Amino acid sequence: MAPEESLGPLFGRRAVLEALRAGQPVSRVLVAGGADARGSLREILHEAHVRRVVVQTVDRRRLDTLARGVVHQGVAALAAAAPLVTVDDLLRRARDRGEAPFLIALDGVEDPHNLGAVIRTAEAAGAHGVIIPRRRAAGLSPVVARASAGALAHCPVAQAGNLVAALGHLKAQGVWVVGADPAGAERYDEGSLAPPVALVVGGEGRGLHRLVRERCDRVVRIPLRGRVASLNVSVAAALLLFEVARHLPAAAAGDAARAGAVPARPTREA
Amino acid sequence: MAPEESLGPLFGRRAVLEALRAGQPVSRVLVAGGADARGSLREILHEAHVRRVVVQTVDRRRLDTLARGVVHQGVAALAAAAPLVTVDDLLRRARDRGEAPFLIALDGVEDPHNLGAVIRTAEAAGAHGVIIPRRRAAGLSPVVARASAGALAHCPVAQAGNLVAALGHLKAQGVWVVGADPAGAERYDEGSLAPPVALVVGGEGRGLHRLVRERCDRVVRIPLRGRVASLNVSVAAALLLFEVARHLPAAAAGDAARAGAVPARPTREA
Repeated sequence: MAPEESLGPLFGRRAVLEALRAGQPVSRVLVAGGADARGSLREILHEAHVRRVVVQTVDRRRLDTLARGVVHQGVAALAAAAPLVTVDDLLRRARDRGEAPFLIALDGVEDPHNLGAVIRTAEAAGAHGVIIPRRRAAGLSPVVARASAGALAHCPVAQAGNLVAALGHLKAQGVWVVGADPAGAERYDEGSLAPPVALVVGGEGRGLHRLVRERCDRVVRIPLRGRVASLNVSVAAALLLFEVARHLPAAAAGDAARAGAVPARPTREA
Repeated sequence: MAPEESLGPLFGRRAVLEALRAGQPVSRVLVAGGADARGSLREILHEAHVRRVVVQTVDRRRLDTLARGVVHQGVAALAAAAPLVTVDDLLRRARDRGEAPFLIALDGVEDPHNLGAVIRTAEAAGAHGVIIPRRRAAGLSPVVARASAGALAHCPVAQAGNLVAALGHLKAQGVWVVGADPAGAERYDEGSLAPPVALVVGGEGRGLHRLVRERCDRVVRIPLRGRVASLNVSVAAALLLFEVARHLPAAAAGDAARAGAVPARPTREA
């Protein structure tokens, strides 16, 4: 599976700035005439200068037209939102870092805001990448990039021609495939979600497809208490991603690993 | 206070005035530009001011369109999607269920989609309610109701005139006030987040206000690993809410409480 380019403009200050910082192939930055050149726009102009990227001042209406309703904050970058990679690229990324693979696959998430939100959370949780199926799923559009708040530049997304086959490939590589489903046999928070792991979360209001669920090593559920009893897919993904993150080495000074150590909860006298 | 049906728009001076006087959930009063501000309109403006309901001056044709032939006399009231309650109502709700209070306060979340998303997740996690400050925050508009995916009808929202004072009141009632902030001294996932607790999450990209943070008993951080290193406010809220939910009694058959029991993680031979 060859990596492909997904071409399209990026909108919004955060997305443009992160793309430039990540060294993405940005051909040109468009800035609306009269945009407030303080704060993040100043950083964008500096970053573009350092990277010798042309900055062009355009009429704000041109950005409105390009953005088609996406909030652009007066800034756009003409570039691919991100190159799509392969599942093996994600595994290589983990190996190059000397880490056990930590991935999340989306089974038919069609809302680009949800895809972007999952990418943002996956990046923050320390995952090596996100896997999306080639069909019936949101691609890496500018809407996805913006919803990811810049994280798309740092969290690779692999496209799988056949998600079921890709999960089988991961299992063969020693990665646990753990699906999330309301009918799951185990709770997600029993302490057993750790790398090497590929989480699998279903699309909006539909859950996992049968063949995908059958391919999972384990299926976990998130216990819900309310009367509405449904979670947004990006929230469900976040709970699982950060459940895995508990098992990762400390993120920074002060985050010393404390696996297994559960301090007594202080009590308050009412 | 039990959640009530949301009302459609009301038209006409008498209807709007009576709705305000009766304490009905009104999110906004629309007044036609140039309307004669004497007599009953003056009373309406006074009543709206007393009840802190936003008054918006609009073009008379907008009222004509909204009213679809109903006589509006230059005044309309838009119903709130749900009634706002008080912090004490939330505490009473917990007490009536024989449960320790489990609340979440939002410190300046201005995006109605984020507010709705937090309400949805709070309801699913088993929280007794959400607290929002009266100013600089999203009200209970239809956008909030829609973003909550129906949860707003089951998860009461209290408005606090002064959030800092409300947190002090909760502390006096024996509730632990736990804020989330990147500079927090403890990790959020060390096992100590349990009811009675009021979580406090800051607004988009700004974190907690200083006075709010100082009022917290404890401030916890969510360890982030990525380079973008920020979470959407609804994701941060979800992680904290479900961290508390781990300590709640079983949600349903099969979700037997297993606090403290961390099963050994199975390993996969690669």
